Amino acid sequence: MEKAVLERIKSSFAAQSMMATLGAQLAHIAEGSVHIKAPILPGSLQQQGFGHAGLTFSIGDSSAGYAALTTLPLENEVVTAEIKINLLAPARGEYLIAKGRIIKPGRRLVVVASDVYAVSGMDEVLIAVLQGTMVPVGR
Amino acid sequence: MEKAVLERIKSSFAAQSMMATLGAQLAHIAEGSVHIKAPILPGSLQQQGFGHAGLTFSIGDSSAGYAALTTLPLENEVVTAEIKINLLAPARGEYLIAKGRIIKPGRRLVVVASDVYAVSGMDEVLIAVLQGTMVPVGR
Amino acid sequence: MEKAVLERIKSSFAAQSMMATLGAQLAHIAEGSVHIKAPILPGSLQQQGFGHAGLTFSIGDSSAGYAALTTLPLENEVVTAEIKINLLAPARGEYLIAKGRIIKPGRRLVVVASDVYAVSGMDEVLIAVLQGTMVPVGR
Amino acid sequence: MEKAVLERIKSSFAAQSMMATLGAQLAHIAEGSVHIKAPILPGSLQQQGFGHAGLTFSIGDSSAGYAALTTLPLENEVVTAEIKINLLAPARGEYLIAKGRIIKPGRRLVVVASDVYAVSGMDEVLIAVLQGTMVPVGR
Repeated sequence: MEKAVLERIKSSFAAQSMMATLGAQLAHIAEGSVHIKAPILPGSLQQQGFGHAGLTFSIGDSSAGYAALTTLPLENEVVTAEIKINLLAPARGEYLIAKGRIIKPGRRLVVVASDVYAVSGMDEVLIAVLQGTMVPVGR
Repeated sequence: MEKAVLERIKSSFAAQSMMATLGAQLAHIAEGSVHIKAPILPGSLQQQGFGHAGLTFSIGDSSAGYAALTTLPLENEVVTAEIKINLLAPARGEYLIAKGRIIKPGRRLVVVASDVYAVSGMDEVLIAVLQGTMVPVGR
Repeated sequence: MEKAVLERIKSSFAAQSMMATLGAQLAHIAEGSVHIKAPILPGSLQQQGFGHAGLTFSIGDSSAGYAALTTLPLENEVVTAEIKINLLAPARGEYLIAKGRIIKPGRRLVVVASDVYAVSGMDEVLIAVLQGTMVPVGR
Repeated sequence: MEKAVLERIKSSFAAQSMMATLGAQLAHIAEGSVHIKAPILPGSLQQQGFGHAGLTFSIGDSSAGYAALTTLPLENEVVTAEIKINLLAPARGEYLIAKGRIIKPGRRLVVVASDVYAVSGMDEVLIAVLQGTMVPVGR
């Protein structure tokens, strides 16, 4: 990865206060692929004591958005036009990791996906899949 | 509304720590319709300083889920099977309100929607629409 | 409606051979709202003898696309970027009608919806809801 | 594959008259994976002369549904609860092929996906991705 692209993503991520609230961190950045990790904090739960769908969505959406951003000119940001999440299993374990990727790059629209896993030791369980559309915009 | 249904929804909502983290509150409960309000807290922002899509999603999803729950037997909870969000405008204003409703009730699947508005004084701007599927489960 | 807009939609619709294959017809055109009717032809069935999801989708998608087109400059066409369908009930009855509408107009993206009903005599049953994104393109 | 499962899928497919209308054929059946091919018939076009989104959707949806069916007891059918399609490129070429697969099996819900390609000679272009939910039902 070009250093400028890395820096751009790190600084955009740092500007998302929601990521800090959720304890989320960048875990991997490569061309067309960004991973975001988050613990299941005591303040991120749903009514059954598992991670809230909003947590899973937030890191899935952001990982997909940053995956899109790795392929765009430095003067761009992206915003989510739409995204759909299918939830597969409860969010429980040591932490969650969202693996965002590009399905189809583009200048007007970038089609993206993210797979979110709950990790316990060596065990990764797929808990959600997201498929959506990012729109490049000026910063 | 039956008092027992109201109490069930209030107690389920109170058990969602994510709602407290986001400052979200129940604003309206009726048969097939639940509204949830949330401020745009300093810790709920995306990189441009607007409310994060994760905030909009979280209250949209929860409002739709509780709308479904108003029509189900007291021994049920619901979980989100899938939900799609189209984001229409930036989340900025005094607060957000998500208005969840039932499209199609059912014992196995409940199809739901939520419209999320950003409110500033008398002005409500539609910022997102969600359409999804809730699954009734035992508590 | 301006006559030129009506003519544009009628001529675009006539150019969609899939609509003729399905027996579909324009039933209503107004600013931001287009309805398309289709019989459930012997060649449009799924394995249980009801109308195929592909029939419901095709008229739902097209009604939403033409609803978007009513608000765009005459030199535009639209293409579907993405659309999601929730199927609520079997497609059975005398005919189906898809009622497309605009949720949010725009020059780059138009967010749309369509409700599809199965009609038998005076009875309209909601069988599907679609929510999606249309992209204006040059003809 | 067990012969009974193959037979069940072939006979269900044969009962879908929409597949015959579109010229679609089963191209591959394996545990959790079904492919369906279709030519772009003169009667399957949209207004620009490419394959209609309804064609792409129909074979994508059916391939995903039959992928789900390969893992279910013989007395089951599946119906689509919901499915979302992102369209990536025009449907043009010699034929389309939809490659359906299971993301998450289940007794109540099966989460599925399908990738649809347009094929010209040796060239396969990804033109659509679908992600959805199938519901097992009695025949």
